[in-house]
Amino acid sequence: MPEHAARQEPLSKARLRIWLKLLKTVNGIEAEIRRNLRDQHGTTLPRFDVMSALARFPEGLKMSDLSTFLKVSNGNVTGIVDKLTEEELALRVAVPGDKRAQMARLTPKGRDAFADLADHHEGWIDGLLESWTVEDIDAVSAALDVVLSPHTDKESGHAQ
Amino acid sequence: MPEHAARQEPLSKARLRIWLKLLKTVNGIEAEIRRNLRDQHGTTLPRFDVMSALARFPEGLKMSDLSTFLKVSNGNVTGIVDKLTEEELALRVAVPGDKRAQMARLTPKGRDAFADLADHHEGWIDGLLESWTVEDIDAVSAALDVVLSPHTDKESGHAQ
Repeated sequence: MPEHAARQEPLSKARLRIWLKLLKTVNGIEAEIRRNLRDQHGTTLPRFDVMSALARFPEGLKMSDLSTFLKVSNGNVTGIVDKLTEEELALRVAVPGDKRAQMARLTPKGRDAFADLADHHEGWIDGLLESWTVEDIDAVSAALDVVLSPHTDKESGHAQ
Repeated sequence: MPEHAARQEPLSKARLRIWLKLLKTVNGIEAEIRRNLRDQHGTTLPRFDVMSALARFPEGLKMSDLSTFLKVSNGNVTGIVDKLTEEELALRVAVPGDKRAQMARLTPKGRDAFADLADHHEGWIDGLLESWTVEDIDAVSAALDVVLSPHTDKESGHAQ
């Protein structure tokens, strides 16, 4: 009876409760993804995230941009890219016009490996969210669209 | 037009998109909380989480349980509890019948400090989710209730 509970408490308490539930759900799904990556593919979420970022930039991504993009420290990203390079899944290339900077990109073998992981990942999420219909997804999506978007005017539905 | 986009793609793609949106939203809110804790209170989210866990167990929590509860390494928790103890916000007490184990609990000063932080935290979440009405909260809550709950029967609404 979540509706009932939400109506009996001040809105700020209801918002705190839904935040804690969001956090718990996202952490739970993430834990399941970590477990599946480890148990079924012998890999880790940070490594999956690095491959995913590199897959979006086929021309390559500067190491510093990769680290900003993933919001993790340069040191961790460097270690992961080193390992991917050793396994011939990624390679480092010079940045034209910047002798000190390096870009990383996936090799064809790396792209294939990531495509396979990404398929599995999509399947895991599909399973974890299997009770969500298109209507559920639309409702949650619309609710999320107005969070962290100070410029979205909810009344008119127009982003400024 | 998220509804339209969701209807044109397979459900597994729509679920992947909503997962990525959930993750982005939760990470964005968490980043804002970290920023506020740091800038307005000179503290950190792991420390806030430790105080929050201790606040729920006024009798004290074993160090090992605290670390399990928070899903972080014992080393980090120990460092945080050491610091809280130094500042007289927490104290360590022996576990009756187990010479090697220690419990941590908040001091009255620690409880007051946490109550103040928790009020601010609730206010930040209230502000971040200010566009969410009770109806939005109910919709998101109902959707989240069926994720990670394999024993919930969606048809009847009864948990087994």
